[in-house]
Amino acid sequence: MSFDVRRVRADLPAVHAQAYFNAGTFGPLPRQAAEAMHAHVDFSTDRGRIGHAGLERWFGLMERARHGFARTLACPAEEVALTHCTTDGCNTVVWGLPFAPGDEVVTTTHEHPGLTAPLDELARTRGVVVRACEPELEAIAAAVTERTRLVALSHVLWTTGDVLPVTEIAGAARTKSGGRAFVLVDGAQSVGAIPVQPSSFAVDAYTVSGQKWLCGPSGTGALWVSPARLAELATPWPWYLSKSRSPAGVTDWTSARRLDGSTIGMTSLAGLVAALAWHQEQVDAGALAYADSLAMRLRFALASRPRVQVVPAPSPSQLVSFTVEGEIASAVSMRLEKAGVLVRPIPGVEVVRASVGFWNDETDVERLLAAV
Amino acid sequence: MSFDVRRVRADLPAVHAQAYFNAGTFGPLPRQAAEAMHAHVDFSTDRGRIGHAGLERWFGLMERARHGFARTLACPAEEVALTHCTTDGCNTVVWGLPFAPGDEVVTTTHEHPGLTAPLDELARTRGVVVRACEPELEAIAAAVTERTRLVALSHVLWTTGDVLPVTEIAGAARTKSGGRAFVLVDGAQSVGAIPVQPSSFAVDAYTVSGQKWLCGPSGTGALWVSPARLAELATPWPWYLSKSRSPAGVTDWTSARRLDGSTIGMTSLAGLVAALAWHQEQVDAGALAYADSLAMRLRFALASRPRVQVVPAPSPSQLVSFTVEGEIASAVSMRLEKAGVLVRPIPGVEVVRASVGFWNDETDVERLLAAV
Repeated sequence: MSFDVRRVRADLPAVHAQAYFNAGTFGPLPRQAAEAMHAHVDFSTDRGRIGHAGLERWFGLMERARHGFARTLACPAEEVALTHCTTDGCNTVVWGLPFAPGDEVVTTTHEHPGLTAPLDELARTRGVVVRACEPELEAIAAAVTERTRLVALSHVLWTTGDVLPVTEIAGAARTKSGGRAFVLVDGAQSVGAIPVQPSSFAVDAYTVSGQKWLCGPSGTGALWVSPARLAELATPWPWYLSKSRSPAGVTDWTSARRLDGSTIGMTSLAGLVAALAWHQEQVDAGALAYADSLAMRLRFALASRPRVQVVPAPSPSQLVSFTVEGEIASAVSMRLEKAGVLVRPIPGVEVVRASVGFWNDETDVERLLAAV
Repeated sequence: MSFDVRRVRADLPAVHAQAYFNAGTFGPLPRQAAEAMHAHVDFSTDRGRIGHAGLERWFGLMERARHGFARTLACPAEEVALTHCTTDGCNTVVWGLPFAPGDEVVTTTHEHPGLTAPLDELARTRGVVVRACEPELEAIAAAVTERTRLVALSHVLWTTGDVLPVTEIAGAARTKSGGRAFVLVDGAQSVGAIPVQPSSFAVDAYTVSGQKWLCGPSGTGALWVSPARLAELATPWPWYLSKSRSPAGVTDWTSARRLDGSTIGMTSLAGLVAALAWHQEQVDAGALAYADSLAMRLRFALASRPRVQVVPAPSPSQLVSFTVEGEIASAVSMRLEKAGVLVRPIPGVEVVRASVGFWNDETDVERLLAAV
């Protein structure tokens, strides 16, 4: 382990302008990603995006992005579909599964609109029953029956930062549904922050956000799908590249690539490829353990402050949520922003959330504590 | 009219590297769009994308892009949904309409996979019957019955460049279906090349591509929806911004914004806003009439060449398709590319297609003619 936060911070101009505690929305962009985007814009403008070379460059970027995500998730590239965001992954599973009226979905009461929006629409238009229960293994397992077709929940709750035991949940879901339930995990707040290898969790699909903890450009993401259950999903938003098109003809992809989202901006892909490589380099150098301990330090320090209540997370992550007595979350967040500390209020649960990243240092933590 | 092709070409570095005849795939990027993208990358990297200011910038970019498309389409911004590509628009209508088994769709035999891919999947998964007929008013009108729920076709055929009489088709579809048919027009090869005001065509939805004739970044597009029929469409791919979210609560959008595609890369949006403004400036200076006459000149000159057959288009556009006796389309295209002339072969119909833009000049046309 040779993690050096000063070296990391040198790559991230945005973390100097303020105390950057909101990778849960957008991470800081490393200068390596910016350079790749600049180079892509220049090349595209000067040389054009057409001809055989232009198309090869486009397809090459898509494959480099797919391989980048595959390295992040420690899986074969064939298990990765490229998306515009985590929500695309949720929609792909929700509209790809062949639901019948009366089928049930089990989820939790702490999910983000990126998951609840598709589920609400599924319930409204297809006569599917959605059961939202407390985000705990026992409650979730108790809600699963043989009618359950989908279990969909976060790995790290965006509200409290609690890490759910997804392997145990997936096991219980499988047993209680007689193998029928498809288990979708929303990885918006996990991938890039905690170690994630979806195949090791025995889940069926796992969504990834490019622009949050992985520090990539906006409009990027991925969906991991277990090869064992890929065939259950239709292609719910088909486009030109949902099939293989070559001079020899049109054939079906046999990999998760069939579920790729429609055109992703090429400049974003170029930046993403650089960001994923950069992020992996930091992870390899011990970044996640560093961020874990810094988050824990913030959690304890906040808890000892007068008027501050830290929201309990039985299995804490790099998200630290808290409330300040007598002050609504949005007011606290605004007050901190004025003091140069960027956190965010979470609507519904009315807490303030600090996302602690491996770019944060002791000074940032002190600044947050002083401003609270 | 003061159209000056030299001035236009000065803004487009890519049109100097080669004879640029493939805006039907990707248009040349103007340096104004490149500059906006560079500025956005720098600002995002240096200042970050979070905090109130960061979110305001994001939402502001989306609204500037929406207003840019609205100006292009001569419609209120409320009628525009932002998408990643034309195919998103097709999918939004195909999966947004409440089809019942036995419902019918009428389309043509000359549609792009961006439309046929969703229609094929609709037929496969929902028991809807898709009837593809010759791309002519009479054939299309004859295929529409009271069971027709959707008529979906291109305005300009990507194969032959023929401009279909969409107003007459929409009128016939409405009459023959008893007002039941929803008319979706795929504008991939029309918007930016010929004048398009969807509301004047009496159609119900119209798709737009950002990266083709409008010369914007990849991963951008729009869907125009008639306010009179917006309510018929569900929100088929819901995400965070499919509803209005403010501190006051969550409410439904009443505009086409409800159908916005999921996160579009912000840097692409920044480039798009600049590209749309630049494109409109050229249109206002007479660019489309100039390109029309250049395309007609190419059409006639090609027709007089030995061994060359121009594909007939009863109502020609800026797409000029042709074949060369004894040579397959992909071989012709490859041969032209080696001579610095970028066209493309169209699979299925086996023709070579030249997209004539307002950035092309006499020298380009001569170069193409010489290389053929």
